Amino acid sequence: MMDFASDNVYGVDEKIMEAMARANVGTASSYAGDDITARVEKQFNELFEREVKVFLLTTGTAANSLALSTMVPSYGAVFCHGFAHICADECGAPEFFTGGAKLFGLDGVAGKISPQMVRESLAGFIRAEHDPKPAAISITQSSELGTVYSLDDVRAFGDLAREKNLKLHMDGARFANALVSLGCSPAEMTWQAGVDALSFGATKNGAMSVEGLVFFDQSLAVDFEHRRMRAGQLLSKSRFMAAQMEAYLTDDLWLNNARYANEMAARLAAGLSATEGIRLGVECQANEVFAIMPKDKHDVLAASDAVFHPWLASGSDTDAVGDDEIMIRLVTSFQTRAEDVDAFVKLAG
Amino acid sequence: MMDFASDNVYGVDEKIMEAMARANVGTASSYAGDDITARVEKQFNELFEREVKVFLLTTGTAANSLALSTMVPSYGAVFCHGFAHICADECGAPEFFTGGAKLFGLDGVAGKISPQMVRESLAGFIRAEHDPKPAAISITQSSELGTVYSLDDVRAFGDLAREKNLKLHMDGARFANALVSLGCSPAEMTWQAGVDALSFGATKNGAMSVEGLVFFDQSLAVDFEHRRMRAGQLLSKSRFMAAQMEAYLTDDLWLNNARYANEMAARLAAGLSATEGIRLGVECQANEVFAIMPKDKHDVLAASDAVFHPWLASGSDTDAVGDDEIMIRLVTSFQTRAEDVDAFVKLAG
Amino acid sequence: MMDFASDNVYGVDEKIMEAMARANVGTASSYAGDDITARVEKQFNELFEREVKVFLLTTGTAANSLALSTMVPSYGAVFCHGFAHICADECGAPEFFTGGAKLFGLDGVAGKISPQMVRESLAGFIRAEHDPKPAAISITQSSELGTVYSLDDVRAFGDLAREKNLKLHMDGARFANALVSLGCSPAEMTWQAGVDALSFGATKNGAMSVEGLVFFDQSLAVDFEHRRMRAGQLLSKSRFMAAQMEAYLTDDLWLNNARYANEMAARLAAGLSATEGIRLGVECQANEVFAIMPKDKHDVLAASDAVFHPWLASGSDTDAVGDDEIMIRLVTSFQTRAEDVDAFVKLAG
Amino acid sequence: MMDFASDNVYGVDEKIMEAMARANVGTASSYAGDDITARVEKQFNELFEREVKVFLLTTGTAANSLALSTMVPSYGAVFCHGFAHICADECGAPEFFTGGAKLFGLDGVAGKISPQMVRESLAGFIRAEHDPKPAAISITQSSELGTVYSLDDVRAFGDLAREKNLKLHMDGARFANALVSLGCSPAEMTWQAGVDALSFGATKNGAMSVEGLVFFDQSLAVDFEHRRMRAGQLLSKSRFMAAQMEAYLTDDLWLNNARYANEMAARLAAGLSATEGIRLGVECQANEVFAIMPKDKHDVLAASDAVFHPWLASGSDTDAVGDDEIMIRLVTSFQTRAEDVDAFVKLAG
Repeated sequence: MMDFASDNVYGVDEKIMEAMARANVGTASSYAGDDITARVEKQFNELFEREVKVFLLTTGTAANSLALSTMVPSYGAVFCHGFAHICADECGAPEFFTGGAKLFGLDGVAGKISPQMVRESLAGFIRAEHDPKPAAISITQSSELGTVYSLDDVRAFGDLAREKNLKLHMDGARFANALVSLGCSPAEMTWQAGVDALSFGATKNGAMSVEGLVFFDQSLAVDFEHRRMRAGQLLSKSRFMAAQMEAYLTDDLWLNNARYANEMAARLAAGLSATEGIRLGVECQANEVFAIMPKDKHDVLAASDAVFHPWLASGSDTDAVGDDEIMIRLVTSFQTRAEDVDAFVKLAG
Repeated sequence: MMDFASDNVYGVDEKIMEAMARANVGTASSYAGDDITARVEKQFNELFEREVKVFLLTTGTAANSLALSTMVPSYGAVFCHGFAHICADECGAPEFFTGGAKLFGLDGVAGKISPQMVRESLAGFIRAEHDPKPAAISITQSSELGTVYSLDDVRAFGDLAREKNLKLHMDGARFANALVSLGCSPAEMTWQAGVDALSFGATKNGAMSVEGLVFFDQSLAVDFEHRRMRAGQLLSKSRFMAAQMEAYLTDDLWLNNARYANEMAARLAAGLSATEGIRLGVECQANEVFAIMPKDKHDVLAASDAVFHPWLASGSDTDAVGDDEIMIRLVTSFQTRAEDVDAFVKLAG
Repeated sequence: MMDFASDNVYGVDEKIMEAMARANVGTASSYAGDDITARVEKQFNELFEREVKVFLLTTGTAANSLALSTMVPSYGAVFCHGFAHICADECGAPEFFTGGAKLFGLDGVAGKISPQMVRESLAGFIRAEHDPKPAAISITQSSELGTVYSLDDVRAFGDLAREKNLKLHMDGARFANALVSLGCSPAEMTWQAGVDALSFGATKNGAMSVEGLVFFDQSLAVDFEHRRMRAGQLLSKSRFMAAQMEAYLTDDLWLNNARYANEMAARLAAGLSATEGIRLGVECQANEVFAIMPKDKHDVLAASDAVFHPWLASGSDTDAVGDDEIMIRLVTSFQTRAEDVDAFVKLAG
Repeated sequence: MMDFASDNVYGVDEKIMEAMARANVGTASSYAGDDITARVEKQFNELFEREVKVFLLTTGTAANSLALSTMVPSYGAVFCHGFAHICADECGAPEFFTGGAKLFGLDGVAGKISPQMVRESLAGFIRAEHDPKPAAISITQSSELGTVYSLDDVRAFGDLAREKNLKLHMDGARFANALVSLGCSPAEMTWQAGVDALSFGATKNGAMSVEGLVFFDQSLAVDFEHRRMRAGQLLSKSRFMAAQMEAYLTDDLWLNNARYANEMAARLAAGLSATEGIRLGVECQANEVFAIMPKDKHDVLAASDAVFHPWLASGSDTDAVGDDEIMIRLVTSFQTRAEDVDAFVKLAG
């Protein structure tokens, strides 16, 4: 089972399955009126060391898009990396949920953008209402290239957002992987650094289908219940969604799972780096490995029962991929086995 | 546990929980690329005795709204009952997903509209482009008042839709309850009667969170993958959604659950009808009971540990509710216990 | 030229044509940066005896819909008369510009709604986020049935709006006709009575194609330049639009035109009322006459060279129209000739 | 009056003013039901040597955005130049009117894109529904840099569009300038080359406020009346809009105006090119001149009473602008005077 296609090809953590089973007793108020949802709201307050507003949603795309819909008017502009999931992988969901806002996908380095890139883009907004109105910045933590913004990085975005009257969104589909990578607290990596809203991912890291949209700027949460309902994202049997999140946050399951996944990625990165002819496209900082290798070596791996995807390099984000080379993406999860990692490295040797 | 608040306050059928647990083995392609999803697609073909296109979604609101988005242009009009879930309970989700179409909520009888009502509404569309363009009819089967359209009723809508070049949508949040009530086949109640797309509910009848959007008119399904993705409705760990539906459709679980729920409703309706001072607001044909009773009797019930909601009567839909009376809605499910039904009737006696 | 089809079938006031010709000299900044636009903004401040924000738009539909887009979130609800232009004549433009808000078209009396009707509708909003969020009231002054809200009427809506945290919009496509009918000041009829935004019509009353969207609640005007641009409503050669409005507001042209049109309507109403077999459906208070007559009399008129439209009565808005009767709408304008009014009355005699 | 800020700072051709005055007689059917509109429709059929559908709109932004709304689903993708007006100057209007489609602004050369650039962009659409669906190509003729696509260029886009099942839109805000530059027929430059819909500009070239949206692919025009109404673009006194277009197309006024404007641009380009220290950023092929000059020379011009705008160079579109240089844009119109051109050249000398 050398499956490195994505962390979402793995299943559900047993502790989360058990929590769902436990929730399946008797009747419960529907539509987020159940007791477990109320408990999860308290968990988030504790987790972030302050009062937050959290709403449970079924997908990361829904969380990201609904977050942006609270930050960005239909005539607004969002700045993000060109590889950002919101920009490149959601089929225009942010445009749909915002009523037609424009995303400015910037060229970055190692999957990350910098405040300076946003400043340069902003400098082009010189034509008053002929341009959309700059409204938000969105960063992905950890990024689509498996790299992690430092706390200073995030704070610099927070400062820029305040200076320019923008909102700061963090796409945390792999929030836990970034958190354990930095070794900081959830508060430090978010609102204390200036983040206004966070898509708090759980699905990739062990849940079945639940993401938390967390508002630190509570003015953004006004009427959010309406937005969720209207988006078809308010589950009637909400207790089962809440049960997933409750278990995920209990006894550090989420942190342990992320730590393990990151370790497997580090093991994979180390093994491949030490293999002749293979080098990393970007540094491995969370649970994704981007490896550049000769095409013939790739073909051997592709013909095996290992599963992974090629990744099209573009811009200056990664180390240059030569004409006879291919870059592949390998993602590890809480269920990835060390023996499979080692087997893959051996196969690549 | 005299909980008649809704069928969605009940939990998940054990057979469905077990199917989800069984699905939790190894890795699986994400985003509806898994094997179980493929099997479910075949199940639907067999169920409807023809090739259909089916997409699994997380909520009935998503299914209804996305269905309408394929049928109705942004400048279009939809005809439905004023009590229809799409009109009265979804916070404008159909308007959102269609890009701003208009719903014409008609006054009906017993929760049902008639082709004649649609014809009369259509007769008012005399001002060319100053009116929206009539595009679809949506009927709820079973209806929001627990009544059921006969096959002839549905066929009459199918005929009208063809005559007027409209599409016909069926909101089947309680499809199974209607089906066993009529004792017909899924094919008879849908495409053979002229239905173009169906929201096939499973959540209320035993699933956790899955609804099937079924297209009989396959031209409506073109690009639907994009619509689902963009709506934030494409789950990454799709196998668990599919596992629910697979179990739901296996060994007649869905029909047995619906039949049982209907029986409980009939038992409740019979008991209440036989109680002095209580009468039904509309005939009980599926799993909902609308009972009109003196306010003082209502107050006794409301003070008990029974759970139910008052229902505001309006128009000519139900038997007239007197000044000293209240109408309440009682919903039964696959898990409603006969002893609780009997206890409630006794309490009302 | 007995043309009573609408006030918009008439041409452009000569004074306005001359103003456009005068504006056609040399070059001028485009996109509302011209001098005439700046002068018009001052005119509006004087007209309303306070600072307002005004934006010139090409159609009443654009003015109404863009006004609502500033007041109502995509998940919001608007209360208006069922005959209101925004509800019945704009092909869903308000839904489009608001991103899918819902209009609640209320049954009124004589083309007008009452605060009590809005209260009753609001009382049905008991289901939290399953309902849209009440956001605005829109009244048409003068109404689609040619009647006029009194100052007390408008103030009562202003009070209700404040009480319920709603915004109050006035569709003033025939603002001038209402104003001269009441004999009050523009300030009294709008912001002093609680109106937050006004669609100030000029086209029907002598202009070629210009309407002013006036914001009294200036928080609604934030970013409106972006909304106008994005709607395709920012004209490059804006001076010609401004020239129309400047002339319209100069030397009481707008008031004189409206006063004349109202006089012609009164003359027509009086003449028809005095004709055997003909009665008014509603009182004539501005520049529209609704006359109920036997079908055979209607047929004679319809066969003449007079132009007018039948009007479908519905609800309790007008005097009941008998089975052998027809109600017609007759609209007068600043160019309607008294001799044509008299000829029509004679023809109807 | 050395005003080269834009062609839209100039006024209205006298012949068009006279036509509007002539139209101001008697009453006329409103909402595009007037006789002049009917005549204009015939003019367009003759102009394009085939039956077309044409709709008159008030702005180029409306024409472009409504055109795209017929070609591109809300989940669709449009390919255009990054400088294209639809991409860079309309505040997201195309996103608004399409319900959230994505524009892919490509880097071009001299303001033009090539089919090869579109092919390369298309090659990145490898992720099924995670990407938007490629739906249309839009080219601007003449381009935002005053260059003109050759007939072969347009045909190559037409071929690509057919091959890839895309629609081809032409933004002809300066259609006439391109046409006289190429010396071909309107048919050759549009539908015979594969264009499906054309925004036919008139405002910049002498009209007051009218653009024609011309559909060659008539399937795109289905229900367009509804789209226009709903966009607030259906003028009630439509005869005046039609009168502008009728005069514009009569006796070659449009071609003569464009030819004259192009001549003035050529005169300006020749004069500046011959001036020491000044060179063109791109070849002048229509009515725009992009001149690169030393900053000190620019400062002299900017301090004069000449009006023009600097143009930010980016990418490889224009000749490289040195650190001590500035590129300015100069636009000529049908009313630009030769003496002002000469005066400007002299001033720059």
